[in-house]
Amino acid sequence: MASHAAKRVLVIAGAGNPVGTGAATARMFAKNGYTVALIGREGSDGASALVEEINQGGGQAKSFGISSYSHDEMASVWSSIHAHFPKSRYAVRAAVYNVGSGVFKPFLDVSPQDLHSCMQSNVFGAFAFSRNAILTFKGNDIDEPSGKRGALIFTGATASMRGNVMTSAFAAGKWGTRALSQSLAKEFGKENIHVAHVIIDGVIALDPKADPEAVKDTKIKPDSIASSYLYLANQDRSAWTWELDLRSAHEKW
Amino acid sequence: MASHAAKRVLVIAGAGNPVGTGAATARMFAKNGYTVALIGREGSDGASALVEEINQGGGQAKSFGISSYSHDEMASVWSSIHAHFPKSRYAVRAAVYNVGSGVFKPFLDVSPQDLHSCMQSNVFGAFAFSRNAILTFKGNDIDEPSGKRGALIFTGATASMRGNVMTSAFAAGKWGTRALSQSLAKEFGKENIHVAHVIIDGVIALDPKADPEAVKDTKIKPDSIASSYLYLANQDRSAWTWELDLRSAHEKW
Amino acid sequence: MASHAAKRVLVIAGAGNPVGTGAATARMFAKNGYTVALIGREGSDGASALVEEINQGGGQAKSFGISSYSHDEMASVWSSIHAHFPKSRYAVRAAVYNVGSGVFKPFLDVSPQDLHSCMQSNVFGAFAFSRNAILTFKGNDIDEPSGKRGALIFTGATASMRGNVMTSAFAAGKWGTRALSQSLAKEFGKENIHVAHVIIDGVIALDPKADPEAVKDTKIKPDSIASSYLYLANQDRSAWTWELDLRSAHEKW
Amino acid sequence: MASHAAKRVLVIAGAGNPVGTGAATARMFAKNGYTVALIGREGSDGASALVEEINQGGGQAKSFGISSYSHDEMASVWSSIHAHFPKSRYAVRAAVYNVGSGVFKPFLDVSPQDLHSCMQSNVFGAFAFSRNAILTFKGNDIDEPSGKRGALIFTGATASMRGNVMTSAFAAGKWGTRALSQSLAKEFGKENIHVAHVIIDGVIALDPKADPEAVKDTKIKPDSIASSYLYLANQDRSAWTWELDLRSAHEKW
Repeated sequence: MASHAAKRVLVIAGAGNPVGTGAATARMFAKNGYTVALIGREGSDGASALVEEINQGGGQAKSFGISSYSHDEMASVWSSIHAHFPKSRYAVRAAVYNVGSGVFKPFLDVSPQDLHSCMQSNVFGAFAFSRNAILTFKGNDIDEPSGKRGALIFTGATASMRGNVMTSAFAAGKWGTRALSQSLAKEFGKENIHVAHVIIDGVIALDPKADPEAVKDTKIKPDSIASSYLYLANQDRSAWTWELDLRSAHEKW
Repeated sequence: MASHAAKRVLVIAGAGNPVGTGAATARMFAKNGYTVALIGREGSDGASALVEEINQGGGQAKSFGISSYSHDEMASVWSSIHAHFPKSRYAVRAAVYNVGSGVFKPFLDVSPQDLHSCMQSNVFGAFAFSRNAILTFKGNDIDEPSGKRGALIFTGATASMRGNVMTSAFAAGKWGTRALSQSLAKEFGKENIHVAHVIIDGVIALDPKADPEAVKDTKIKPDSIASSYLYLANQDRSAWTWELDLRSAHEKW
Repeated sequence: MASHAAKRVLVIAGAGNPVGTGAATARMFAKNGYTVALIGREGSDGASALVEEINQGGGQAKSFGISSYSHDEMASVWSSIHAHFPKSRYAVRAAVYNVGSGVFKPFLDVSPQDLHSCMQSNVFGAFAFSRNAILTFKGNDIDEPSGKRGALIFTGATASMRGNVMTSAFAAGKWGTRALSQSLAKEFGKENIHVAHVIIDGVIALDPKADPEAVKDTKIKPDSIASSYLYLANQDRSAWTWELDLRSAHEKW
Repeated sequence: MASHAAKRVLVIAGAGNPVGTGAATARMFAKNGYTVALIGREGSDGASALVEEINQGGGQAKSFGISSYSHDEMASVWSSIHAHFPKSRYAVRAAVYNVGSGVFKPFLDVSPQDLHSCMQSNVFGAFAFSRNAILTFKGNDIDEPSGKRGALIFTGATASMRGNVMTSAFAAGKWGTRALSQSLAKEFGKENIHVAHVIIDGVIALDPKADPEAVKDTKIKPDSIASSYLYLANQDRSAWTWELDLRSAHEKW
């Protein structure tokens, strides 16, 4: 059983974009003492650069390639993570599923491939990732002071709450992720495993430094999203959040 | 263009259980003047018996077999329906997607096959069915007095609104159907195509005659669900319902 | 105990506008065999004209004046209704609360009077009306074929689901009505009393004849709303709707 | 204009119970550098003890008595707060409305007084408190690093989301508070004023020290709620949460 004396590990899927939510989350958890295991598509340069950045900054990170978010590949990549970060010295305490490609098309233009891709990333991949995270957490002891074995966090979107004219496929996938997260929160809370869902209700600022003032008002900064993930991971088990929404102050909603 | 002088047709998928919601819907629409095209798994005896029952009762029905709810098979079976009920004399005015098999298992027992089956029936099949229904409705003129080209109705469940400890896969699928229905309602309302979603929040009485009093209080009768579908199909276009819930009077909720 | 052999009565509050939802509901229930008791502010000409119209059309209606929707006045006006339509020959089977004045102002412009007026009509009046309706229904036998003692229906609005920049007071009131309706539906369903809430999500066409085509597409016709109320009142007790939404086909939502 | 060089003040209504959410919030904000102004019913001993505790611990607190949460009294008590903590040296940056007495009774037992009390605390008082908080925040400059003028936080409950058999009046009030909070969040976000609503979905542990293990699993600790309020108050303006839920890990929901 992974001990609370072990080093905390974050496993995150979907951190390939160096200016995106996943990368910001990896950086923030690394700064807060987590070793970071990045799961990403093989050949992603973004992940390599991020790993190098974290390691050079005094943190510890490693990327693990995957060619698809299938059940079997996901099991395999988690095995590689456990082999690399053995339970004798590491405990996976946080898992973030930040995957979920969108399709924005009128319904009649949604191809079977579009729909499959949407469901693959938002539902099948989310189930496979969750299975490995939950199984891993069940093998953990209770971490303190949070009182939990681990936290599993999903990135949601406006389309997680609302279907709309261009989002039939995307919303079907995102509602699926959200339903999964609620089911897991209810099933595994009593085992001291925390499952949360964050609704990013707006446009993410992929280049906040370019125009910081404008960004502050109308777009969501990845660092701010990452802060909410860290907050959720640290919530003590007497008061867990299943869901919170995030939007910029000036968003019209 | 299918004329309002044409005979109204209901296309319904998922009417194989002779005492279920789909069969009750087929009977009710048949009694109200609709020709009924049943889409069901090949070799379903239930569909044959229902077709015979409706035809012997003075109605008109025909079943169309399908081996899976895939994109291509769905397109093919709708072609067969159109060939059998040509647009010169028939207009598909209502389409009911009553498919959506459930999986009720603890999360860690949900196999990849369980999940695929759940998503196939609740999401992929729903997209494929909807595509053909929408394309068909777009070819219709406006029906009167409803002012609509056609109505597409989905059967939902408690799991459409809530994930729970035994329903991670089922809820992911049902939330997906619901998201699709909302997206379609928003996208095609302005083309006078009505899309609705009915949440069946409780247990369906599959044998209401066995214990009519008990059933009336604690279970939902298929005929009553069918009445709501007929009501929705007839709503005039100044006041359309996207969603309504149905539960028995004595349900605890 | 009011017998099912008795004449069905609809009690409706908020039917003073002769081209509004309440008046349309009164007319529709009258056409379907209900005697109509209108509760309205004293001195409303609209109610008098409506009563005359229904009575001249072969129906039966009477208006009952009230100076405010307070607890005591509401009890008093229901006593008058029972005195006029004695339980030996009449059974109140439907009660519609169509009251709920709105305040549309920036928050800082909402006066204490605005807020009181909003809460009075949407919450205090709704509680008082509901109390009398529920007490009356409890004294009824079971009506057939619906299997219910009576149906209590509330008119909701977009503001019942969403607060917005101009609707702080209105939404607070309308969410209050909705919460009441859900509580009552859960509490009294097991006594075979049906409580429903209808969300009118859009603008009501107060003069549909003036521009029927435009109205059909973008506004909600009072007659169509009334149809949904009649449908709800008739739902049999194996499948009751707590809530349905209504919007015009061309509404952007 | 209150300057960001000024000392941060928290104004909190509803901190009279020394082991409740309000007191925990006052303590936590005090520990994090806020001066605390407590608004409470006159003669509450709890508030005096809390003020003494905070002041003796090196913090700064003062209680301000009010005899009812009316519009006028609320304006008056905020004036007293501003007089005591002048804008030249203090800036109210956080306001927490933790008031909202519940009524748990079958609907027919809810008296007019019960309902008035419920609406007074949950709606009228919330409007009055919000008005003063918003007006105060509008006079603030932008605080850094949060980028906001101030944060207004409401305590919600399970009854904020659901009406139920014993909560007709309580839910009507709590849904009202929630609607207000959403309206304000939408209206004042663009003025860099943050409004949030926290759903406490469970039983609060009023004596966590008595049985810390049991409490950790099945009840919500006031300190943990307070942490979430502090987190919300600090969220930077690119990513604000309107609503989050809180429940204990072992809660069945």
